[in-house]
Amino acid sequence: MELVNNKHSFSISNHEGVIIEHKQEKAFVYIGKAKENIEQTYGDFDISEKIIEKIPLRQLEINENTYTFKNGDYRLECQIDFKDDEITISHIKMDKEFNRIYFKIASNENEHLYGCGEQFSYLNLKGREFPIWTSEPGVGRDREKLLTYQADLMGVGGGDYYTTNFPQATFISDSMYMLHMDTSLYSVFDFSEKNVTEICVWGTPEKLSIYSRNSFVEIMNLVTEKFGTQPKLPSWLLDGVTLGMQGGTEVVYEKVRQALDCGINVNAVWCQDWVGKKITSFGKRLFWKWEKSDETYPNLEKLIADLKEQNIRFLAYINSYLVEGTDMFDYAKEKGYFVKKNDGQAYIADFGEFHCGTIDFTNPEANTWYKEIIKTNMIDLGISGWMADFGEYIPVDAVFANGKTGKEMHNIYPALWAKCNYEAVQERNKLGEVVYFMRAGGVGSAKYNTLFWAGDQSVDFTLHDGIASTIPAGISLGLMGNGLTHFDIGGYTSLFGNVRTEEMLLRSLEYAVFTPYMRTHEGNRPDENFQYSDTEKSLQQFAKATELRHKLLPYIEKVIEENANTGMGAMRPLFLHYDDEACLDIAYEYLFGRDLLVAPVYEEGRTDWEVYLPEDTWVHLFTKEVYQGGRYTVSAEIGDIPVFYRQNSEFSNLFATI
Amino acid sequence: MELVNNKHSFSISNHEGVIIEHKQEKAFVYIGKAKENIEQTYGDFDISEKIIEKIPLRQLEINENTYTFKNGDYRLECQIDFKDDEITISHIKMDKEFNRIYFKIASNENEHLYGCGEQFSYLNLKGREFPIWTSEPGVGRDREKLLTYQADLMGVGGGDYYTTNFPQATFISDSMYMLHMDTSLYSVFDFSEKNVTEICVWGTPEKLSIYSRNSFVEIMNLVTEKFGTQPKLPSWLLDGVTLGMQGGTEVVYEKVRQALDCGINVNAVWCQDWVGKKITSFGKRLFWKWEKSDETYPNLEKLIADLKEQNIRFLAYINSYLVEGTDMFDYAKEKGYFVKKNDGQAYIADFGEFHCGTIDFTNPEANTWYKEIIKTNMIDLGISGWMADFGEYIPVDAVFANGKTGKEMHNIYPALWAKCNYEAVQERNKLGEVVYFMRAGGVGSAKYNTLFWAGDQSVDFTLHDGIASTIPAGISLGLMGNGLTHFDIGGYTSLFGNVRTEEMLLRSLEYAVFTPYMRTHEGNRPDENFQYSDTEKSLQQFAKATELRHKLLPYIEKVIEENANTGMGAMRPLFLHYDDEACLDIAYEYLFGRDLLVAPVYEEGRTDWEVYLPEDTWVHLFTKEVYQGGRYTVSAEIGDIPVFYRQNSEFSNLFATI
Repeated sequence: MELVNNKHSFSISNHEGVIIEHKQEKAFVYIGKAKENIEQTYGDFDISEKIIEKIPLRQLEINENTYTFKNGDYRLECQIDFKDDEITISHIKMDKEFNRIYFKIASNENEHLYGCGEQFSYLNLKGREFPIWTSEPGVGRDREKLLTYQADLMGVGGGDYYTTNFPQATFISDSMYMLHMDTSLYSVFDFSEKNVTEICVWGTPEKLSIYSRNSFVEIMNLVTEKFGTQPKLPSWLLDGVTLGMQGGTEVVYEKVRQALDCGINVNAVWCQDWVGKKITSFGKRLFWKWEKSDETYPNLEKLIADLKEQNIRFLAYINSYLVEGTDMFDYAKEKGYFVKKNDGQAYIADFGEFHCGTIDFTNPEANTWYKEIIKTNMIDLGISGWMADFGEYIPVDAVFANGKTGKEMHNIYPALWAKCNYEAVQERNKLGEVVYFMRAGGVGSAKYNTLFWAGDQSVDFTLHDGIASTIPAGISLGLMGNGLTHFDIGGYTSLFGNVRTEEMLLRSLEYAVFTPYMRTHEGNRPDENFQYSDTEKSLQQFAKATELRHKLLPYIEKVIEENANTGMGAMRPLFLHYDDEACLDIAYEYLFGRDLLVAPVYEEGRTDWEVYLPEDTWVHLFTKEVYQGGRYTVSAEIGDIPVFYRQNSEFSNLFATI
Repeated sequence: MELVNNKHSFSISNHEGVIIEHKQEKAFVYIGKAKENIEQTYGDFDISEKIIEKIPLRQLEINENTYTFKNGDYRLECQIDFKDDEITISHIKMDKEFNRIYFKIASNENEHLYGCGEQFSYLNLKGREFPIWTSEPGVGRDREKLLTYQADLMGVGGGDYYTTNFPQATFISDSMYMLHMDTSLYSVFDFSEKNVTEICVWGTPEKLSIYSRNSFVEIMNLVTEKFGTQPKLPSWLLDGVTLGMQGGTEVVYEKVRQALDCGINVNAVWCQDWVGKKITSFGKRLFWKWEKSDETYPNLEKLIADLKEQNIRFLAYINSYLVEGTDMFDYAKEKGYFVKKNDGQAYIADFGEFHCGTIDFTNPEANTWYKEIIKTNMIDLGISGWMADFGEYIPVDAVFANGKTGKEMHNIYPALWAKCNYEAVQERNKLGEVVYFMRAGGVGSAKYNTLFWAGDQSVDFTLHDGIASTIPAGISLGLMGNGLTHFDIGGYTSLFGNVRTEEMLLRSLEYAVFTPYMRTHEGNRPDENFQYSDTEKSLQQFAKATELRHKLLPYIEKVIEENANTGMGAMRPLFLHYDDEACLDIAYEYLFGRDLLVAPVYEEGRTDWEVYLPEDTWVHLFTKEVYQGGRYTVSAEIGDIPVFYRQNSEFSNLFATI
């Protein structure tokens, strides 16, 4: 990189071109004042602002590494440190009455930008705005669809293209640099303008760093070095499928028997309702008190032991809430373990007919106590993993034990919740054996979360909220250093008459084979939606899919290991390994590891599918037909997802046997 | 009023308090740069902006009446002229690179503000923003209702609380002043902040004027003096009801006979389809070529003559468009009479399966030609009035014969369209006899439009788009000097299964008696919606309503005359005559003239209604029960709208006979 300082201007470039340029008529920094309005409904945040002042700081004074940007009385001072391939802007100071900083980064029409966390709608961010704020992704997520508004009006939130459980103030440019802003504050990355990227932050960030590299692979190495990478997943989880089921001990015995009879390779059952149910007018909800329910699961220990004999694990569920009216809630409340309101009282979250306290992980005592619950009530019981749910609902006006507000902690909370899980598992020496999966995340998650899942898709083929959305989600999460993710086979959310069909379930099944982990979910309304065991055909497809998975196991092990060792995610964008302009815009195909190209069928009623193959020699995994780079339409009946392997893969002998 | 100039500050106050205050730490003027995005779908405008810079001009230099506001290099110069009760800010100059001016007007939490044109949702504007931009009001107009989004997605526009056919950059404060901004540019009056009102204009306005007065009545005199008032309506229109009907000559004979047989006092028939119909996949649409259709209306002259013998007029329909594929269109296009695009070609408006040119009234030849059409094809035929529809659809990038752009002309166009109608009628010496009614308007309309109607309500009881919305609409329009308005009895828009019931029709009928004009509309889907002739009960209620109307005629004549002479509108807010805090927030009751208080029942299934009566002696028009000021629940069966007269009205003898 190059930093050129003049008297009243400066510029920062890498080998691809200018990244930052400040001159009198084109200020790098603006400061502003604005008044925000944040309305929260459960995990849906309606955020808007009115700009009161917005001032370009045109004048510049440079004194060694201290840069002072000014315009009349307005000023911002910062320190800019330059290394070969790294620029850091830090020690940012401005007048207290201002609450917005805007950085202008050079861009151009053809730039491709990726990141900002887990993105469900767009892989390439150019042309749009992306706020950094963890939230429910929403139901519908498409302002062209009525479902989105129905969800809004129901109070669950329809979401938008940018709403995500896992935002991150980081982007990667195909001008071969990564930019990361160190801050937990709300910010907006605005890529909508042709020639400039604007980063707006609602307060003063710690740092803004730009790192130049020579390739996307080098950038991924940097991501791994900066944000960490997830440890290796245990082998038991890679082979076979985990079946999500509820209903109690007897149901589990029965369903497992049926699955095994049908030849399905089951590695675990996942029973969310291990804690029992709570009846509300909305329907059955899990009882958010984290200990086994002897009513729903009598003889749970025996069930777990019996399953283990068949090499099947038992997985459970937990989140960071405790429901009012339980001894755990009362204890935590009395001890002051909950996130608080301004008046020092516990901040009670309303989940519609039940109320909860939220564990404050910045309180070391609370953290220790919650870890004990995980250790004693879950790990010691023989539970091999769980969904560690939620993390996105911290209200802006909450107060934490570390003295910080909800506004500052909102984006950090998911990683703290991950860390609590991590430490519990670590303290029982079960890392690499016990696995928990989270949907919420941010900077810090890669180190502390063993596995992601893509949250609550709708049970349909919509682009922004259905099966398709998990593809850019998996790729983008991987680009931020979180290479291990998966999704609910069959999706989750069924509302307003939108129900899961057999086709929907089977299309997501065939695609799940080529992800780190296969797990089904009954969905929010099990009785109205197609379940894996509803037809013979479906049971057969599950058997066939787990058989395929088993055959691929050596390769999958390698993919997972590579992620742990090098940070190269399991679901990689094509452009990571192919220097091909066309790959830069491909959001719905991915490389599963280095050698498999996967093109999930995400539309209804298809029997063929168009794929783009970058320049290489590709072999269709099922037909063994050989393809060179190009665009092809291939057969894609249900069960025959378009997947290709590289002919010169070291696993090509294995692939040839499929 | 008082203007106090100091060296670097100034303030303007009236007897109620400070109106404008400028000092270093609290600038009166800000300037800015922003990039707007205006997306038009038919008459629905999706308008947003990104603020690039927004600078408070803190420093002030005063040189006689020249005020220069500055901040570093940023500056705005203007002239401030002061008279006893009037302040005018004019000759505003700023650097060309800026495209936003923001004026900050003092406010307080308890201030009540009215105006900004015809407001369908809120009479008191405090607490909300109101953009000034004529458009379709939208279908639903309530972001809490699914219908609004259904309309959005259908492409007709769901609208919002502020969308209106008639916006005006004028407000009236209960701090006893009126503020008016002379500009046709898009602007936003933002009353959402407690202590300040912000006026943002997208360019440089001609003038900003503030007029102080001692009472609302004095303010209404000022409104009349500034904006004019509508002339007296002809007597034929005040007595009886106008029946909207379509289908051709025979249908009209038949429907009139039936109505008269039932004892309905019919003053006119209104036949939109006098020009014939055009079949599109959307349904039947009027054929937008303005001459009688001999196919649909054979022997129209005879029909008109026959009706006149029974003292019934014939009303028609026109708008400022001409449909492609007609000789009129071809002629106008060839002559260059249409609004144009940048490239000099006619700007063809797409109405979904048919395309139209828009008459450019700034082209004197076009204006003359269109007047000739009205005179020859309508007035000379014996047509006594018409709906002069539309006016809100001018695209921002249109070009007019006067050299101005659509951006500048958009808000002016409705008044030009009104003026064309006015001159046609005037040139045939038919003012006071021929009447046309418009929904679109703005400054200038009061002088040139004989009558308003409230546009296209939904056929329901919703607050923001149903019968209720016409009440604040009528009051607010009156406050801007347009005292003569009415609405479609039964509403108009029926979409997504929302259909007109008998109750809906009859509730709007009983209320229409106490407005300047009674007229029915079949609605957009006549067959699916209740029509006045569908039941005996309905026909009887129409007979009863026109009988009541006839009895009230002397009073109604007085109300209409008073509007013409003094500018006091037919539908007045209670606060205009009652200095009573509670009246300031009453949007759904009104005074019909000075002596009748009307409280329309705008909810379904009601048999009683709560009314607020300001301090006076009131007599219930039907029960003759006497009330003093206060809040009462009165019986309100269908047909018995709560109406009260002032006991010491000069018409109390008349009222006593009802």
